[in-house]
Amino acid sequence: MTTTSPRRSGGRAARTALRSAPLAENLRPVRAGMEGGNYGPLTQAGIERIHQAALDALETIGLADAPESGIAVMTAAGAILGDDGRLRFPRALVEDMLAKTSKEVVFHARDPKHDLHLSGNRVHFGTAGAAVHMVDVEGRNYRECTVQDLHDAARICDRLDNIHFVQRPMVCRDIPDNYEMDLNTIYAVTSGTTKHVGTSFTEPDFVDGGLEMLHMIAGGEDKWRARPFVSNSNCFVVPPMKFATESCQVMEKLIRGGMPILLLSAGQAGATAPAPIAGAITQAVAECLAGIIYVNAISPGHPCVFGTWPFVSDLRTGAMSGGSGEQALLTAGCAQMHKFYGLPGGAAAGIADAKLPDMQAGWEQAMSNVMAGLSGLNMVYEAAGMHASLLGFCLESLILGDDLLGQAMRCVRGIEVTEDSVSLEVMRSVCLEGPGHYLGHNQTLSLMQTEYIYPELADRSSPKEWVELGKPDLLKKATARKEEILADRSAARFDPELDAQIRAKFKIHLPS
Amino acid sequence: MTTTSPRRSGGRAARTALRSAPLAENLRPVRAGMEGGNYGPLTQAGIERIHQAALDALETIGLADAPESGIAVMTAAGAILGDDGRLRFPRALVEDMLAKTSKEVVFHARDPKHDLHLSGNRVHFGTAGAAVHMVDVEGRNYRECTVQDLHDAARICDRLDNIHFVQRPMVCRDIPDNYEMDLNTIYAVTSGTTKHVGTSFTEPDFVDGGLEMLHMIAGGEDKWRARPFVSNSNCFVVPPMKFATESCQVMEKLIRGGMPILLLSAGQAGATAPAPIAGAITQAVAECLAGIIYVNAISPGHPCVFGTWPFVSDLRTGAMSGGSGEQALLTAGCAQMHKFYGLPGGAAAGIADAKLPDMQAGWEQAMSNVMAGLSGLNMVYEAAGMHASLLGFCLESLILGDDLLGQAMRCVRGIEVTEDSVSLEVMRSVCLEGPGHYLGHNQTLSLMQTEYIYPELADRSSPKEWVELGKPDLLKKATARKEEILADRSAARFDPELDAQIRAKFKIHLPS
Repeated sequence: MTTTSPRRSGGRAARTALRSAPLAENLRPVRAGMEGGNYGPLTQAGIERIHQAALDALETIGLADAPESGIAVMTAAGAILGDDGRLRFPRALVEDMLAKTSKEVVFHARDPKHDLHLSGNRVHFGTAGAAVHMVDVEGRNYRECTVQDLHDAARICDRLDNIHFVQRPMVCRDIPDNYEMDLNTIYAVTSGTTKHVGTSFTEPDFVDGGLEMLHMIAGGEDKWRARPFVSNSNCFVVPPMKFATESCQVMEKLIRGGMPILLLSAGQAGATAPAPIAGAITQAVAECLAGIIYVNAISPGHPCVFGTWPFVSDLRTGAMSGGSGEQALLTAGCAQMHKFYGLPGGAAAGIADAKLPDMQAGWEQAMSNVMAGLSGLNMVYEAAGMHASLLGFCLESLILGDDLLGQAMRCVRGIEVTEDSVSLEVMRSVCLEGPGHYLGHNQTLSLMQTEYIYPELADRSSPKEWVELGKPDLLKKATARKEEILADRSAARFDPELDAQIRAKFKIHLPS
Repeated sequence: MTTTSPRRSGGRAARTALRSAPLAENLRPVRAGMEGGNYGPLTQAGIERIHQAALDALETIGLADAPESGIAVMTAAGAILGDDGRLRFPRALVEDMLAKTSKEVVFHARDPKHDLHLSGNRVHFGTAGAAVHMVDVEGRNYRECTVQDLHDAARICDRLDNIHFVQRPMVCRDIPDNYEMDLNTIYAVTSGTTKHVGTSFTEPDFVDGGLEMLHMIAGGEDKWRARPFVSNSNCFVVPPMKFATESCQVMEKLIRGGMPILLLSAGQAGATAPAPIAGAITQAVAECLAGIIYVNAISPGHPCVFGTWPFVSDLRTGAMSGGSGEQALLTAGCAQMHKFYGLPGGAAAGIADAKLPDMQAGWEQAMSNVMAGLSGLNMVYEAAGMHASLLGFCLESLILGDDLLGQAMRCVRGIEVTEDSVSLEVMRSVCLEGPGHYLGHNQTLSLMQTEYIYPELADRSSPKEWVELGKPDLLKKATARKEEILADRSAARFDPELDAQIRAKFKIHLPS
């Protein structure tokens, strides 16, 4: 074997040094918005059958419990109010509204470099949920979430490359007043990250205050309306096939206030949605199509995400199982329906049923996240940090989730096949002219940073190195990283003058 | 909400009782050989480009280092020996041999219910590898593997539903003599499981003894040849593009002895294979096509598996990274090439770089396994128990891997879309006639066992239940399960008379 060659350069130290040079954004091996779509569990015939069943459901079953205001706009658009109080939607109305709805939506961010362009198979991972517990890894305990936890989570997300947006993953259990909770949720997340933020208003009456705060943060209502950097997660239906009256009223106000909407249908297969996976998708699609009609009847083209977001029950107990394979399939199948309609879509993946960030959590989070990404889901919600089937949020798990999601995103990126990448000439040179291996080849070195992704915390040492390193514990490394991030001053924090104005106007629970 | 309904029956206790009834094999939610194929990272154009590059490589680069016997059979078939000692393969020869090779292969098992029918997109998960360490979870230690460890692993695999075959995952480091090691490897695995077994002979001279033992176990050479229940993993190439002389001699003898062959090309992208994923696939395909020519030149239609099995280097260090996203893509891309040729194929997935069965191990094992399954890979080797990039094997991880693989297999099964499953009539009845939910609906109950899979050890309790259960630790549960399995007498053990005959003939290291 030849040990020197004009093509061979450097060794391990040189490669490590090269790797440590920062990469330009466009050369990074993975980045937000890479395109999936090479996986789809549904056949074309299956997709169309689900679509037809959803249209049938809208036409013949319809949805109950719309607020008066919603009944007014939807019947004006062509929906039919039955004697049973249910709104039914003729097929032609669905088609009309699908033509009017936005096919490309931008979810803006305080920092424009984090804007999310939602269309096609572009994939973005982020947090979401309404956990009531924080998972204390060291003490193996579940305790109630606080507004400080929420702010800390946002600050950590701000530093994790593979978390592309920050929908609030937990509720502030230390703020008993719901108005104060809603306002402090917005404050705690937006002051922790410059990425796109998702929130969820509890009551219609709280919207005006929230928008007022957002106008202040944006620097005026016009600036807010030009680049709304917060979207609202609207559980606008109570499955099966009922509008959530109050959430619909929230939605109406937010549409008028210029906030993008996540139209979220969160049925649970076997409980509030049919038990077959195809049936749960059908019902979610029907419900979200009703949402599309609702939104576009108020404001044609208003930015919204088609949030077919069905969950899975463990049918033995009726309890939710977000970590199951059935959940991963539900979400991937939903992503295909989004493409079928050509609409920006979102669904849930990455939920662990595991109580702690253990091996179970790893496989549960990985399987559904990678399948969501490969299916080309635009917005993968609840992708990191979520445990106990959404009841617990864990900061260590969130940090490790960044490595997990980087790997998933590498899978989404896929395999480039080009004249260069099939490597015939390189093979020829290596095999026929030496050195008989590819280790120091220019091609290898040139791809080291752009084709391969390296985890931040995951361990790739050999057993020998691992012993020499003192057998590092993954969770302890995550805790150390958490403390390191939280010890820094947040780069996303508000200008002190603005902060003082907000605090003068609203009761902010976080210490300044 | 109506609380009673003719369709509603039973509660949690009834559902749990129903679930505990054993399911007929054909009703199980997942089983060996379910069909994947809904995922493929390569486009059709990419597949064909790789195919053409592989043909070019065979025609113009060829392979060095074939043994004399191999040169004789391959040149007789039409290969061309160059002055540089490399065998080159004209395109027409590749096509001729692809026509002759077996498209459907059965990997038999001592118990016919475990036979593997390899074709199309049928997926099977199993162990493999050559780990030198056992991972001691409780002590967080790596120690050398023994023949007892190997036997224990086989016995555990025999009890895990989602491990469909048992290729030896480790080498017996306590048997210094390689002949004794090879024979004891066969004994330790075949006496531990009635599933299909994979082994790997070290030297051609050891084959006769191994076959003799297998004839005894089978009850005669004719019975062995009718249902050979052990295949040989042949690393017949030393990438790039060189035959492994001695392994080829082993292969020749085994073909004549009736043993199915795994034609294994184990290059490492960036080290012994090109760094681009497409290039590593191209080289592996070229090498395995050479293997197909070799095997079929000796014995047309001899059962073999197309084992494009490229690994990934961490390009910073050159060390292997089996747990990476790049590895998952390599394996899934290879599965597509197998389909392109219509050949039974195998590759590696499920390898963890993590040293212990922690969260990292979970996500690493899950991502590549589920992608391998979704791509329709026939034989997913190294799917469970493998740590430290193949250097360590862990029995607790193997046991937890059964849950992980069950979930992956559920994803492989996919989504059935039928008139019943889209559930329009059920939705209509639930929404319009009550009870407004699906919990006790006949459809829900009827699917509970057949549509949904439940993990054995993974935890789905609520935080409250989890505290009441004493916060069970996943790894401690796995250790307890391991001890439970190993405390039982193995159902796969040999008849005492046969065992005595084997022990009289061969030096068996396991105590009887």
